[in-house]
Amino acid sequence: MGPDPIDRRGFLALSGGALLCTIAGQEVATDEGQIDVEGLSRQVKVPPKVTAAEWRGEDAGARRLAALPSGGTTREYWIAAEPVQWDIVPTHRDQMMAQKVKGRSKFGAYGYRPYSAGFKSPLGKATVPGPLIEAEVGDTIVVHFRNKLQAPVTMHPHGIFYANEMDGAYKGKWTDPGGFVQRNRTFTYVWEAQEGTEGSWLYHDHGPMDPLPVFKGLFGPLVIRKRGEARPDAEFFLAFHTFDPSITGLQGTFYCVNGKAYAGNTPTLEARVGQRVGFHVYGIDNFFHTFHLHGHRWSEPDGRIVDNKTFGPADSFSFELVEDNPGRWFYHCHVFQHLHQGMNGWYLVS
Amino acid sequence: MGPDPIDRRGFLALSGGALLCTIAGQEVATDEGQIDVEGLSRQVKVPPKVTAAEWRGEDAGARRLAALPSGGTTREYWIAAEPVQWDIVPTHRDQMMAQKVKGRSKFGAYGYRPYSAGFKSPLGKATVPGPLIEAEVGDTIVVHFRNKLQAPVTMHPHGIFYANEMDGAYKGKWTDPGGFVQRNRTFTYVWEAQEGTEGSWLYHDHGPMDPLPVFKGLFGPLVIRKRGEARPDAEFFLAFHTFDPSITGLQGTFYCVNGKAYAGNTPTLEARVGQRVGFHVYGIDNFFHTFHLHGHRWSEPDGRIVDNKTFGPADSFSFELVEDNPGRWFYHCHVFQHLHQGMNGWYLVS
Amino acid sequence: MGPDPIDRRGFLALSGGALLCTIAGQEVATDEGQIDVEGLSRQVKVPPKVTAAEWRGEDAGARRLAALPSGGTTREYWIAAEPVQWDIVPTHRDQMMAQKVKGRSKFGAYGYRPYSAGFKSPLGKATVPGPLIEAEVGDTIVVHFRNKLQAPVTMHPHGIFYANEMDGAYKGKWTDPGGFVQRNRTFTYVWEAQEGTEGSWLYHDHGPMDPLPVFKGLFGPLVIRKRGEARPDAEFFLAFHTFDPSITGLQGTFYCVNGKAYAGNTPTLEARVGQRVGFHVYGIDNFFHTFHLHGHRWSEPDGRIVDNKTFGPADSFSFELVEDNPGRWFYHCHVFQHLHQGMNGWYLVS
Repeated sequence: MGPDPIDRRGFLALSGGALLCTIAGQEVATDEGQIDVEGLSRQVKVPPKVTAAEWRGEDAGARRLAALPSGGTTREYWIAAEPVQWDIVPTHRDQMMAQKVKGRSKFGAYGYRPYSAGFKSPLGKATVPGPLIEAEVGDTIVVHFRNKLQAPVTMHPHGIFYANEMDGAYKGKWTDPGGFVQRNRTFTYVWEAQEGTEGSWLYHDHGPMDPLPVFKGLFGPLVIRKRGEARPDAEFFLAFHTFDPSITGLQGTFYCVNGKAYAGNTPTLEARVGQRVGFHVYGIDNFFHTFHLHGHRWSEPDGRIVDNKTFGPADSFSFELVEDNPGRWFYHCHVFQHLHQGMNGWYLVS
Repeated sequence: MGPDPIDRRGFLALSGGALLCTIAGQEVATDEGQIDVEGLSRQVKVPPKVTAAEWRGEDAGARRLAALPSGGTTREYWIAAEPVQWDIVPTHRDQMMAQKVKGRSKFGAYGYRPYSAGFKSPLGKATVPGPLIEAEVGDTIVVHFRNKLQAPVTMHPHGIFYANEMDGAYKGKWTDPGGFVQRNRTFTYVWEAQEGTEGSWLYHDHGPMDPLPVFKGLFGPLVIRKRGEARPDAEFFLAFHTFDPSITGLQGTFYCVNGKAYAGNTPTLEARVGQRVGFHVYGIDNFFHTFHLHGHRWSEPDGRIVDNKTFGPADSFSFELVEDNPGRWFYHCHVFQHLHQGMNGWYLVS
Repeated sequence: MGPDPIDRRGFLALSGGALLCTIAGQEVATDEGQIDVEGLSRQVKVPPKVTAAEWRGEDAGARRLAALPSGGTTREYWIAAEPVQWDIVPTHRDQMMAQKVKGRSKFGAYGYRPYSAGFKSPLGKATVPGPLIEAEVGDTIVVHFRNKLQAPVTMHPHGIFYANEMDGAYKGKWTDPGGFVQRNRTFTYVWEAQEGTEGSWLYHDHGPMDPLPVFKGLFGPLVIRKRGEARPDAEFFLAFHTFDPSITGLQGTFYCVNGKAYAGNTPTLEARVGQRVGFHVYGIDNFFHTFHLHGHRWSEPDGRIVDNKTFGPADSFSFELVEDNPGRWFYHCHVFQHLHQGMNGWYLVS
């Protein structure tokens, strides 16, 4: 990055590189080569309320929990943000077009990783997207979040109710401790699944390095069900997003579902005829997508029947169908360019 | 295309050319000059089930028809995919801006063409979009599809029910005969307008050359009406799509409605005050559009009143209004760049 | 601009400059440097009906008013289009990322400006967006529109009913006087808030220089309420749009809300717990956006609960919520690139 951001901005306009963000006065763009998130993060100042809370040993989560009316179930999660070696196209094959996907596809991603109580032991690997967080209306979700990355990151939820300091968002000089969780620190988020928050949502980093940690994989699904609602027999959570060369250091942009690209690498969904099948679809990149499912269609809440639906960054939607059509089907983004750069997968019905 | 797709991919990133697809290991991009679809197609292997079915003389359509419960009406279509010389701006005028549209606008498109029973005689020219396919709930649609192009293509329907092998989609090594219809071969698609499939839909190629044949014009409208439902007095089917230089060999991208660009070339719709007027709008390119109609508005199924609506690739929507406002009106995409590159037309109400 | 538009179009494809429009045969693109709208406008011919009406001294507004059934309330506005020096980032700070926004941010915009009856005195400055126009169902809106710019411009409304000649749209040789209001001329628009037009809408220029005057700031909000409907306790009208270097002569694209970029410059919304709060959101550029509000969510008309919503150019939507969550919140476009180039702001709840 040049010494003069103004000239740099002019250069960006000329070169076609898209500006991703400006961090600590440095313009970060898609034509940079791989971005050094950790290096950049060392130039970001710790906000005053973060320093003060640490100095006083305040626990905002405990305080918030104490303030809640007693009653509902508390669902407790232990989740860490960690680096993870991630292979976007492990088979190096595109089953849709029956051809090889050439080139390297592994890079240093960020993932959320679930742990057992007290961070005793991991319950699996760090993944893209992170683990499912779920609740029913009336529950309180407590997430003990530990940052094992070299850069400050957070967890910001969509849809659910949360008090201001549980927002998980960097807000410059107004940033609360939950909006700037430093390396090796733990913050306890308390989120409340109040009446009127039911739905399928995302959580994701919204810290001072935004959007770079999200683009490296720090997002995951959050579902709030109605009280006592039966779960579908099969249920799929599908995040549509991209891995850009500036994030991966790889060649070309990968259009992904759940961190993977090309059928045979993306999730292969399975269901049986007669089952009640639930789909939850999310977008979490700079692009707009459409979700299309072959051989099936569903009713929207307004009564329209669709088999293809537009959604944008941080949108989420759900639908259910009763499975009636056996076979090997595609699900895919119907933006042809995205489809052909990996945003497709199999849905197998037996 | 260079010998090394990895370097080529890097080059694409530098040059700003968008990757359209990868076919037989060849990366095909928007900055290629006109793409040789037929030449590329000769490098694609015929899938094993396609070869086997041909060798055994199997007729999947006849088998599917025999398996259906008898009862509903069968609506039979004979449709061929054919090359067609297509003029995007036949008047060479843009009536919206009252100016000349300079440069050539004719190219070798692909179109679906309707024939009489048994392909005896054409019922018109091959067009972009193809002929309207329509049914009522309960009907079975049978499409005898003949490929008169030099490249394998298909017909893939949206919305309607179809068994797995009637999908019309290339699926690599799992491809059924209907997903890879070779030159001069005929395949019979059987699609079922079951309860819950009513709506306005698209059909389009989804074969091994995808998305190139779609981008050359292989798409059309499919409507499934409720049983006995009265048709509107006037009804319009409008596909919003683009012709890219890589497809046409022409200069600049044309933003089209039904294969034409600029008012006076795009469909001029006509209706009279008092008529019930139906609009069916589709997107079938890489872009998101909004549909705007001057001097009018309509009710969405959720009760909202709108005069402008976002839709994406393979989305479709319909609305009706009772005409109450005479005059010369525009319909157009409200993405200003698309509007000014041709995506507009007249709606004349007398 | 080169002498040969065809070669120019080829050049545009190579350089990555997006074509904005073609005016009087001149291709106008985003890589031009600042566009000389006034200079271009001198090459546009006055349409015949405009000249004829002027010659005969016809007043289409008076004629339209006389033709209306008497009864409803008439709401009269005096609005001029004027040049205005506009600062997109007056604080030169981005409060979201706690950093300086470097470079110049002031340019010569266009704005709609409200006047008292008879254009006696301005009721404020010309602003981006223009003044709120409001009515209840049954009302007639009369806008006396004066053009104080050097280029012909208009006012075109969305949603509301208007007769053909009140469209405010340039239509080439069919252009009515209201579609081509020349410098220092006044045109009286008559628009009718008939039953079925209630909602939140935009008005904007749709004259012969389209889309340049819109991109320079000529748009504003129009709301039609149900008869006797109580207004929310707090109400916000937020237009999402961009200022491009070709429009501003500045470096880089500014992603704006109501003409400003970056929290602390964009509108800082304020409400109190317990208040009924109404949001009206619009898009008016070439891009698709999503509107996200931290710490809150709302019900869509179809019953879905959302906190993030996709909208496109000229789309508009509204929602209400009862405020229950104090604190300092963000509203923003969730397209990360737009968010980080300024499309964010504060919502302060006490």
